[in-house]
Order: sequence, then structure tokens, then C-alpha cells
Amino acid sequence: VQQISNNNIKRIRSLQLKKFRDELELFVVEGYKMVDEAISSCPDAIQILVCSEENARFNLPENRCFYLAPQALKKLGSQSSGTKILAVIKKKKHVFPSQLDGWMIALDGIQDPGNLGTIIRTADWFGIKDIVCSEDTADVFNSKCLQASMGSVFRVRVHTTSLATWLQPFAPQTFAAVLDGTDIFSVKKQPEGILVLGSEGQGIRHDVQEIITQKVRIPGHSKCESLNVAVSAGILMQHFCV
Amino acid sequence: VQQISNNNIKRIRSLQLKKFRDELELFVVEGYKMVDEAISSCPDAIQILVCSEENARFNLPENRCFYLAPQALKKLGSQSSGTKILAVIKKKKHVFPSQLDGWMIALDGIQDPGNLGTIIRTADWFGIKDIVCSEDTADVFNSKCLQASMGSVFRVRVHTTSLATWLQPFAPQTFAAVLDGTDIFSVKKQPEGILVLGSEGQGIRHDVQEIITQKVRIPGHSKCESLNVAVSAGILMQHFCV
Repeated sequence: VQQISNNNIKRIRSLQLKKFRDELELFVVEGYKMVDEAISSCPDAIQILVCSEENARFNLPENRCFYLAPQALKKLGSQSSGTKILAVIKKKKHVFPSQLDGWMIALDGIQDPGNLGTIIRTADWFGIKDIVCSEDTADVFNSKCLQASMGSVFRVRVHTTSLATWLQPFAPQTFAAVLDGTDIFSVKKQPEGILVLGSEGQGIRHDVQEIITQKVRIPGHSKCESLNVAVSAGILMQHFCV
Repeated sequence: VQQISNNNIKRIRSLQLKKFRDELELFVVEGYKMVDEAISSCPDAIQILVCSEENARFNLPENRCFYLAPQALKKLGSQSSGTKILAVIKKKKHVFPSQLDGWMIALDGIQDPGNLGTIIRTADWFGIKDIVCSEDTADVFNSKCLQASMGSVFRVRVHTTSLATWLQPFAPQTFAAVLDGTDIFSVKKQPEGILVLGSEGQGIRHDVQEIITQKVRIPGHSKCESLNVAVSAGILMQHFCV
């Protein structure tokens, strides 16, 4: 396998920053699990594959596969266990969902990339195809988000827009969990709708809250103030979207 | 407020390691949210409170409150946003649960402290009082676990033991989610039981699996292999334990 050039190493390192991921329309996935998912979902989008095993062979054109010594790849990667393989991938352009066909998720200001990735993974499990995020939601191509998504990022389309404006036409079919909503058990499953989830600290913003017509409550028992946003997303998906 | 001594700073730093937390039977919580929870749940267990605001006053005896300059406290703490307050707390001894009274959670080898903390927080939300962990589960007093628990660690009792041995007598009332279980919607709510959750990578160990009598499946739709363990814990608690 060919040795990777210093220029390519620099380019990969630059992709740790959202600014360069946006500019170059590229992102980096790490670890065998994620790289395997990429090879099976979008082999043509993989620009560069870098591996620290000299003899590894992949189902990709040879001129896109590179070798980098284990210590150098560890330094380049972000995995705490030590990155052994990574791939640079071209971002896909998704068509923005303009009508409802089953369930969608709307995310208002989710800050934690781990929570965002876990929500993408959970949406994938429940067969949800589109997630629409407010502009201040964490970047889906952040390494922590990609890792938490466990490859679901290759199957779920994540969009970013001005959330309140986009949500308005769907108002009658918007659902959210709030502390003073209707008990979730009194609200039946629905064939379609949009599940809105708010930021971990502030909840759903006022202008988005105003649009939501169906407010439910996940019954809680104790002094605990709230659930983790990815956990409540999972409970709501299981309740409404199966 | 009095200045904290170098010896106390050293002691606090040592508590980053499980070895010293176990030996001294102490742990450290960080941030106003967690320290407030500690002051309201177990004021007598707080040995030392360290704050970088000189004029802050707490509902604690003066001789247990200390000042440390902001930069030094940031270095001592683990919060990425910069620790402004922390407290050293004496571990509570919990009576081991020997019979069932409502629902309990059993954790087999949960490795990620964030997942462990989120499960504790979710259990608290659903009014579950006891969580029993295998010996190789992450340490509940790890700073990431404490942070993810959002204070629920002061209300839920977390025990560690040889899980298979402890679980045996409860076999008829053990539940777990597995890929080839019975559809969860065909299994009704139960007044009591033990929900068993396995490690993120390996699932539930063979000797523990053999004990579990009621195996359910959370219906999934797509190529997604699995749910995050804290998300599936939330879905199962909402389904069985409300």
C-alpha cells in the first residue's frame, strides 16, 4: 500500500474543525465498524482510506488506500482507544423533506454531539429517515457524534435549517414531551408526525414551542428533574413511531 | 473563607483514581447543580467544599468550606467548561437488596461511565431505587458517571456484586431485551421485576443470560444493529416499570 503524503495528513487534520468540513464538504470516520459501514453504504464517496495495517485489503480502488504507521495514525485520530483506520468521505447532498411520509424528528439546539449521534442511531432503529435540526444544533460530522451514531449517519438524512419556519406547515402533527403535557399513555400511536426534541439545558425554544400542538408527558416518579434527551427521544419513538 | 491547604488539594486529586476513592471511601462531585444536590441530600456526608468564588456562602459549617483561585480550581476539576465548585463526599453504605419490592435494574458489564450515569438518572425518573452491578461495570463515582447522573446518584442506591449469583433467586422475574425475544408489545406491564442490561459491545454474559426467563425484543426496522444501552434501558423502564 502507498504511504500517505504530508499534505493529505494536514488535510485530514483540518477536518477536525467544522469550518473546514463545511468548506471542503468532507468528513472523517474512524474505526473498523464505521469504515465498514462507509464501504458498504457509499463506497464512491470515500476519497481516502488510511490504515495502520500494511497488509489490510479493502473493497476500494488501490489508489485511494494509504498506509500510515500506527503511532502516527493514533496521533491523527480522535479515538481514545487509538485509531487504527480512518476514511475521508464526501458529504452527500440530501433533498429537504417538504412533506410528511411517516415520522420525522426535529431537533432544537441539541448541544451535545454524543446525544445527537445517539438520537440518529435510535431514529435509524425505528426506521425514521429524516432528522431536521436547528442551526445551533451540534454538527453531525463531529467525531463524537459520528461515533455515537454507530454508522446510522449513513442511513438517516440529517438536515439543518431555521427550525420554526420549516416546522410551521406541519403544526397539526407536531409532538413534544413537556413537563405539563398530557400523559403519554392517553395518546395513541400515530401513523405519521414530527417529534420535536429540545436542548438539554433550555428545552424547546419559545418560538418552536408555540408551533407544537400535541404536548405529552413521560410520567416520572421522583425528584429527578428530567430525562437525558436521547433517552426521552427513544421512549417517544417507541411509543409513537413503531 | 479559608484557603485550602496543599495537602487537601493532593487528596482531592488522588480521588480521580478509583483505587483512592475505594480506599478513602470518598468521591468528588463538581459544578453547582451537583453540589446543590449533595447539600440537600446528604449535607453531613460533605467533608470539604471548594469554591472559586470568595463570597459564596453555603448551608454548611464554615470549617468545611474552602476557597481556591479560579485557575487552580479549573486545573483540579474535570469539567471541560471549567470547574467552579466541587465537594468531597463520604460514600454511603447501602443495604443490599435481598428481596423484590417493585422494580430493580441489574447491569452486566456496562463499560461507559456516561451510559451508567444516564441509566441511574433514568431509573430515578421512573422511581427505581436499586441498581445492582456486576464487578466489571464502570465505577459509579467516576466523574463522567456522576455528571451524567445529574444528581440521581444521591437518590438511587448502586450496589456491586457477583451478578449471576445474586440474580439466581430472582430468575422467574428477570427481564432482558435480546434480538430474538418476544415482541415487547405482547408482554404486559408488571408490578415488579428485575430488568437486566448488558454491556454495550458484548451484551449480557452467557451465565447471566441463562438465568433470565423473560426475553423481549424492542422492535427495530432497519439495518441498525442495536440501540444505545441507556436508550434501551429507558424504553424498557417506560414499558415495564410505570
